[in-house]
Amino acid sequence: MRIIETRRAPNPRRVRIFLAEKGIDITFEERDLMSGDLSSTDFQTKNPWQRVPCLVLDDGHAISESVAICRYFEELNPEPPLFGSGARGRADVEMWHRRVELGLFDRITQVFRHLHPRMAHLEKPQIALWGEANKSKVIDELSRLNARLQSSKFIAGDAFSIADITALVAIDFMKPAKLTVPDEFKNIVRWHADVSARPSANA
Amino acid sequence: MRIIETRRAPNPRRVRIFLAEKGIDITFEERDLMSGDLSSTDFQTKNPWQRVPCLVLDDGHAISESVAICRYFEELNPEPPLFGSGARGRADVEMWHRRVELGLFDRITQVFRHLHPRMAHLEKPQIALWGEANKSKVIDELSRLNARLQSSKFIAGDAFSIADITALVAIDFMKPAKLTVPDEFKNIVRWHADVSARPSANA
Repeated sequence: MRIIETRRAPNPRRVRIFLAEKGIDITFEERDLMSGDLSSTDFQTKNPWQRVPCLVLDDGHAISESVAICRYFEELNPEPPLFGSGARGRADVEMWHRRVELGLFDRITQVFRHLHPRMAHLEKPQIALWGEANKSKVIDELSRLNARLQSSKFIAGDAFSIADITALVAIDFMKPAKLTVPDEFKNIVRWHADVSARPSANA
Repeated sequence: MRIIETRRAPNPRRVRIFLAEKGIDITFEERDLMSGDLSSTDFQTKNPWQRVPCLVLDDGHAISESVAICRYFEELNPEPPLFGSGARGRADVEMWHRRVELGLFDRITQVFRHLHPRMAHLEKPQIALWGEANKSKVIDELSRLNARLQSSKFIAGDAFSIADITALVAIDFMKPAKLTVPDEFKNIVRWHADVSARPSANA
């Protein structure tokens, strides 16, 4: 099996960090999402949505969507659990992960896609007003996460989880989106230093 | 335990259909999201994100986010499985569910939030151009789902899953968003009639 990805894009990084935390080694195959590689007929057969990463199993079955790929490996290699443990633990991770994905990562992505000149040929139409509107939504979300991290080591609780992976990738993606974490969010700064120091952050 | 919800909003409906498919009975407590009930201090303690539905366990622990609530009940009552079975089956449901959520439901929601006059006090600023831009994204997504349903009984495969629940709620939410499914998407029309005929659709 192998993962088709574009190394510098944020979503494939989520999967690489996840696999590094699990200690899973896998073959990666690079495609450049900016140059139209993903609209080839061959790739569209694997993922009609034309997105990376895409896990291709040995029998050719393709699994797209970062979180679907992570969940596949969570089932095959349950330790350490990165989607939580037990009914309540798994629900908590799902809740926090969705807050981070929909409230933070998606909004940073909107800022990037609607304001960065390099995205003009992919995001049509680019709507600067929508990009700008998301900037304050990002800050609101960081404020709520900062409050959460006042009393919690990691985002979903005492254990590192996929919610931390997505939050790390999202916050690092603020740089190309020309956004910065305000210094006053001290709990986020502390948490970000912690998770960035894990070897998986370099995956 | 009980679920705090706003009955006519789409997200709580996802949870009600899920519980009906599982045959689970639970107490619902109504709050009106349009009148500011969700910004009360009491509710903010349960969910600082101020969204419904919110499951409150007997010990007071609160689980928000529709899919997190569904996952909690999937763990407690695994039959029938609505998140898939086995590593590959669960990954497939996750993949299809995300396509439906992010590609369809979220885009319909953007049309509604940015174009419906009733949302002007909740979505600030309302950006009509962004609402309009999402209309063609909705059609593109319906087109890909229509192609999928040519060869598949349900969205994620042979079995009804949470991907069908979210797609049903999303497509029914097209009405208040003043959108319609083009007649040419015959597979969607067939699938929609099938899932709407299930008793759970009335939950």
